[in-house]
Amino acid sequence: MNLRFLGYLCGLVIVAIGAGILVSAGVSAIYGDSDLTMLLVSGLICLAVGWPLYWVSRKAARAYVGFREAFVAVVASWLAATVFGALPYMMVGLFSPIDALFESMSGFTTTGASVLTDYNQPHGIMFWRSLSHWYGGMGIVVLFLALLPSVGGGAIRLFAAESPGPTAERLTPRLKDTAKHLWFIYVGLSAAEALILLALGLDAFDSLTHTFGTMATGGFSPLATSVGGFNSWSIELVITIFMLLAGGNFALYFAFLSRRPKDLLRDRELRLYVGIIVVSIIAVGTSLMLARSHFSIAHAFRESMFQVVSLQTTTGYVTADFDQWNTFAKTLLLMLMFVGGCAGSTAGGIKVARFLVLSKNAGRTLSQAAHPHAVIPVRVGRRIIPSAVVSSILAFFFLWMTTFAIGTVLLAASNVSLITAASAVAATLNNVGPGLELVGATLNYAPIEGYGKVVLMVMMLLGRLELMAVMLPFTRAFWKR
Amino acid sequence: MNLRFLGYLCGLVIVAIGAGILVSAGVSAIYGDSDLTMLLVSGLICLAVGWPLYWVSRKAARAYVGFREAFVAVVASWLAATVFGALPYMMVGLFSPIDALFESMSGFTTTGASVLTDYNQPHGIMFWRSLSHWYGGMGIVVLFLALLPSVGGGAIRLFAAESPGPTAERLTPRLKDTAKHLWFIYVGLSAAEALILLALGLDAFDSLTHTFGTMATGGFSPLATSVGGFNSWSIELVITIFMLLAGGNFALYFAFLSRRPKDLLRDRELRLYVGIIVVSIIAVGTSLMLARSHFSIAHAFRESMFQVVSLQTTTGYVTADFDQWNTFAKTLLLMLMFVGGCAGSTAGGIKVARFLVLSKNAGRTLSQAAHPHAVIPVRVGRRIIPSAVVSSILAFFFLWMTTFAIGTVLLAASNVSLITAASAVAATLNNVGPGLELVGATLNYAPIEGYGKVVLMVMMLLGRLELMAVMLPFTRAFWKR
Repeated sequence: MNLRFLGYLCGLVIVAIGAGILVSAGVSAIYGDSDLTMLLVSGLICLAVGWPLYWVSRKAARAYVGFREAFVAVVASWLAATVFGALPYMMVGLFSPIDALFESMSGFTTTGASVLTDYNQPHGIMFWRSLSHWYGGMGIVVLFLALLPSVGGGAIRLFAAESPGPTAERLTPRLKDTAKHLWFIYVGLSAAEALILLALGLDAFDSLTHTFGTMATGGFSPLATSVGGFNSWSIELVITIFMLLAGGNFALYFAFLSRRPKDLLRDRELRLYVGIIVVSIIAVGTSLMLARSHFSIAHAFRESMFQVVSLQTTTGYVTADFDQWNTFAKTLLLMLMFVGGCAGSTAGGIKVARFLVLSKNAGRTLSQAAHPHAVIPVRVGRRIIPSAVVSSILAFFFLWMTTFAIGTVLLAASNVSLITAASAVAATLNNVGPGLELVGATLNYAPIEGYGKVVLMVMMLLGRLELMAVMLPFTRAFWKR
Repeated sequence: MNLRFLGYLCGLVIVAIGAGILVSAGVSAIYGDSDLTMLLVSGLICLAVGWPLYWVSRKAARAYVGFREAFVAVVASWLAATVFGALPYMMVGLFSPIDALFESMSGFTTTGASVLTDYNQPHGIMFWRSLSHWYGGMGIVVLFLALLPSVGGGAIRLFAAESPGPTAERLTPRLKDTAKHLWFIYVGLSAAEALILLALGLDAFDSLTHTFGTMATGGFSPLATSVGGFNSWSIELVITIFMLLAGGNFALYFAFLSRRPKDLLRDRELRLYVGIIVVSIIAVGTSLMLARSHFSIAHAFRESMFQVVSLQTTTGYVTADFDQWNTFAKTLLLMLMFVGGCAGSTAGGIKVARFLVLSKNAGRTLSQAAHPHAVIPVRVGRRIIPSAVVSSILAFFFLWMTTFAIGTVLLAASNVSLITAASAVAATLNNVGPGLELVGATLNYAPIEGYGKVVLMVMMLLGRLELMAVMLPFTRAFWKR
């Protein structure tokens, strides 16, 4: 095991975290807030730890990075980010250590499940809270690939271990270019959203923090009432559009920009993604109108649209307390969390691409039962999916549901209600944020006891790294040559 | 499409139903109950419809029976059983048509979800209610295979379409013998249980009806308080043991009887089945002791044992209102419903054998990720599972969970609570019976509105026929040559 590479990656991540905290300290300075000193101290601690770690192990970046190093380093770097990202919360005195770690993990994994109860906080710390989403969104490591000189042969393995979604297609032959392109799209869309929100009258702080939460499909808002607090049609619409974009495949946007615009319309995953969202908006909106006679059509569909998009893209912003909605709407929303966004997006969940393959395979199995001697491949569009890929997606689905089941049983042992347990695990494993009942749209995760918070943190990391990277080091095969 | 074969099979099933109703009329006569006349009339109607249908189409039994005929005939015969089995409930005036169909479907599919609210009923009709379980238990058609002269080439297809579990192993080369052996074991175990219950002091009526419910893993009891009504250690223990046996693979018992006793101990599925039950009993029993300080160890484990075995074997008898238990216990029980019994048993659920293959395949996928170039087969014990079988089991799991999700959304539209909707669908799809909240252990399905009852009836049939037979006729491939 090349321990140096681990040190190298963690060092870089911690330095980046330190830089982010110092930027937040800058925000604090602008507003003349009380948290300035502690943010500065936290940021400097990160630099003091991260820089030497990086410096000592920097040669490892050019050495060969094996399979094991890559996977262990990814998990270690996310844990390092969580721990050092939690520093400011503790230094400022906002949270107990366990709560600080929970909020930090929730931020980097773009979950957006919060333990914050008093939203009357200084700007610096709230800026850091939102910034942690944006860091996590594209994956800390992918950013490094683009920003830093060659990290040797391990880069492609790192990318495979971290980038969300079942397809590990390379957009351009050179990995560094790929990462740069994704980063460019991410930054470009973020800038566009922030500018539009500014133009709609939000101040710089609100438009930046909400952009971080949107583009990372995170969901932290500095407002206690989340996006609902703006009470504005136009702002909700803009955030809805950018949530939709953040939940789509970034590689497609790149193809669109590089003179292959038809790819966008032809993409089966994108069509299914939009299809599911449109059908769900109609279904939920109709159920709201039927269940609440005082809801106008416009009102029902405005709330339905925002909530459906927010929960399926696993963002978790809220404009209405959907925990009070009818059972049909709640059940559907809970299921959309599992679907999630597209592969190659910042969204969580099982991903639309996987559901596409899963349902095509189910249809294939039924056809096979009717024609036992026929050889029927799984097709998506014109592409035939190799059986090894189908098989690993099927195994992924089973592991995901098993993780959900085990997580729910474990959380249930802290004796919250069944709905609370199941929806909290669904909302963290799928990196959504709000659940139902005790962890509902207008409430938060503060009342969950320490043990339960640890369970949920594990769920967030499992969900963000799509199981593999976290589970593999616990298997025998991983350590066997 | 050979319509004659359909008529032949349905005719036979309706005759058998008629015979069962006449037996129930006999029970009524013994007790001098008021329902005698209407039971006689119902039984004779069945014979009057079934016999001519059988007679007209009897030659079809010797003709070639194709794939389509076999599947459509199986579904049609279950529907015929449900309709004619509901006759007595309507004639006696016990239920409305929709409730009568629900109770009848619940009986034949061995679900045991009841709409009965007043248990003060004459003996004849209650005997028929329990007898419908016993009919359904082994599958009406399997019984016919053994009892009747050759039914031609379609027999093996029928057997494959109907017998529960992923393995379609033939025990002996000749299918008719297989069916006879299974039937022999089923009758033998039933006789043993009934005699032991008689010896423990139950009267003939109670011991027979509870044997029907046990051996079929059904769960209807003529007592409003189910098995809890006996308030007897020894009776609970005997029923627990026979529920366990009914949830095991009948083919193994046959191997045991025919001088291959070691097969029983070596069987991986049986070991996992017993393992899951033992671990669950300990977990639930411990949680009961911790949550309720007034529970003695004996009390906690007595209730835990009965409920765990009853719900995992998908029987659904109750001795305690588990809806009042702690969340951990309730969550675990709900998940055990999905595991179900062994392949080749009368139990419902996904089946332990499938979970064995699913988890082995998940482990294989993780190993494969660590060693991309290795060829790693899925092994259960020393046997290598062919990849086509693995793939169809994976597809089955996805279809089962999707059916559960869609069923829950559909039932949620009748605006029962989320727990009620999800647990009712889990309890019917897995052929268990009692769920949680509105359909909890001490309550029943009467308050579910008509639309919801239809959804749940579809779930019962999908679960009992393990999706395929019901879903296939709705695919294009099925009708294409």
